[in-house]
Amino acid sequence: MVQDVHFRTPPFTLEDVGHKALAVNLSDLAAMGAAPLWFLCAVAMPRSFGAREVLRLARGMSALARRARIALAGGNFTASGAGGLSITITAAGEARRPLLRSGGRRGDLLYVSGTLGDARLGLAPRAPPFAVRRQRRPEPRLRLGLLAARHARAAIDLSDGLAQDAGHLCRASGVGAEIQVDRLPLSAALLRARRTREAAAAVALQGGEDYELLLAVPPARASAFERACARAGERVTRIGRLGGRRLRFLQESRLLDSPPGFDHFRDKVNPRPTEQARQRI
Amino acid sequence: MVQDVHFRTPPFTLEDVGHKALAVNLSDLAAMGAAPLWFLCAVAMPRSFGAREVLRLARGMSALARRARIALAGGNFTASGAGGLSITITAAGEARRPLLRSGGRRGDLLYVSGTLGDARLGLAPRAPPFAVRRQRRPEPRLRLGLLAARHARAAIDLSDGLAQDAGHLCRASGVGAEIQVDRLPLSAALLRARRTREAAAAVALQGGEDYELLLAVPPARASAFERACARAGERVTRIGRLGGRRLRFLQESRLLDSPPGFDHFRDKVNPRPTEQARQRI
Repeated sequence: MVQDVHFRTPPFTLEDVGHKALAVNLSDLAAMGAAPLWFLCAVAMPRSFGAREVLRLARGMSALARRARIALAGGNFTASGAGGLSITITAAGEARRPLLRSGGRRGDLLYVSGTLGDARLGLAPRAPPFAVRRQRRPEPRLRLGLLAARHARAAIDLSDGLAQDAGHLCRASGVGAEIQVDRLPLSAALLRARRTREAAAAVALQGGEDYELLLAVPPARASAFERACARAGERVTRIGRLGGRRLRFLQESRLLDSPPGFDHFRDKVNPRPTEQARQRI
Repeated sequence: MVQDVHFRTPPFTLEDVGHKALAVNLSDLAAMGAAPLWFLCAVAMPRSFGAREVLRLARGMSALARRARIALAGGNFTASGAGGLSITITAAGEARRPLLRSGGRRGDLLYVSGTLGDARLGLAPRAPPFAVRRQRRPEPRLRLGLLAARHARAAIDLSDGLAQDAGHLCRASGVGAEIQVDRLPLSAALLRARRTREAAAAVALQGGEDYELLLAVPPARASAFERACARAGERVTRIGRLGGRRLRFLQESRLLDSPPGFDHFRDKVNPRPTEQARQRI
């Protein structure tokens, strides 16, 4: 996680940066259905950094680490030269049968956790505090990942936005998908912030960094999975199914333009810095 | 390893950078007497980087990885924003009984591998090619580390310079040491480049990045250790022993100033960028 690429300080506090650097790595473990074990943290720091700044980073990180029961096992400090603050985390977890992006099969039902688009909304000017929190303090879905490992066949965490990440899962699994845009779970905050439900759904499709999970569950496991989620208090929503040769987005059974059709969205809110960075590379 | 902190390009080629980033991590495995297993590589790249630059980095890295029989298991690419090139490597190895810095006991004999000071000499203007190579393409002492694990009680690799790194080992082991400065192994290139042997020895003591090993071997194991090194073609030199309460440097049994006494050396050659960086932090 690199300053001025993945975050800016301000508005991010150093506690936010510490939290998010660890959270995005734990989210990858969650997506594999893994239980966290330990992590390593390498920090490159600008000259202006002293013990106080390091402690603020550590505070954001350690609160999450304690909740996730993952221990800091080592790491490195260095100066960042001309660059700003940069954090590289390696997180290790344990899974009996890891969930992969490639496990999806034709007919599997697609579920997402939580609500989508909030983290992108959190980058907009005058964003509601709920959305700002989703942007700066994402919560890795570790408990859901462990639960899903017993039912799902494939999973990915939503870092690039549902449209892109569903594409990653489809490509890895060698199958297309249909996603019902009118079923996407949207927060009240996002619905209030956009004029129409369709505009809010576009944010949910294109906006990244939600760190929710997209899961492919065989139909035979669907009701057991839904019951287990309800018992555990984990919110999941069925949004489509794997099948066909392409990834398609449907609105009340009308076929929408593929994700590039949503590109006009980019002109309306700040493009996500990660995306910009990727495009440059 | 951060551009303009740990290396500059030029004079470093991207192949040099790839090699050295992996080598310094393998050197830590060597110092623990571990056999390399796998590594992860996270690269933050400036905008100017394309596929060709990434391939040059990878080439330098993969030649060493093949020789060390270590596999790249994963990693990450990102843009570096305002910063330059930066590489973070996590290397994993396996050791039945890892060598630690803290294992040294009073009476243990101190050995170093190879020759010292060459990497620092390699930073000087018009440095001989041998010294330049030692600076840009350090060779991790993996084979010696595995061999030493059967005889030594403590080890550290020499990244900060013998004076500092011996101090690290002493502090961790809770014991002082005597080091015979006139026994330090010096290359013909370093002796040629300095007017006196004393001046060359100062470079060997203070100059970092040699990535040789400093080993503490119990007297009862010393001759078996030396024979094993001779059989394996690994050069080691006995330079002192652990004991007393402080780390002392002797020249023909005359006590020298402690390492700070060598500070005048800093005015004579470029200070090592890593050191500068540490001081800033």
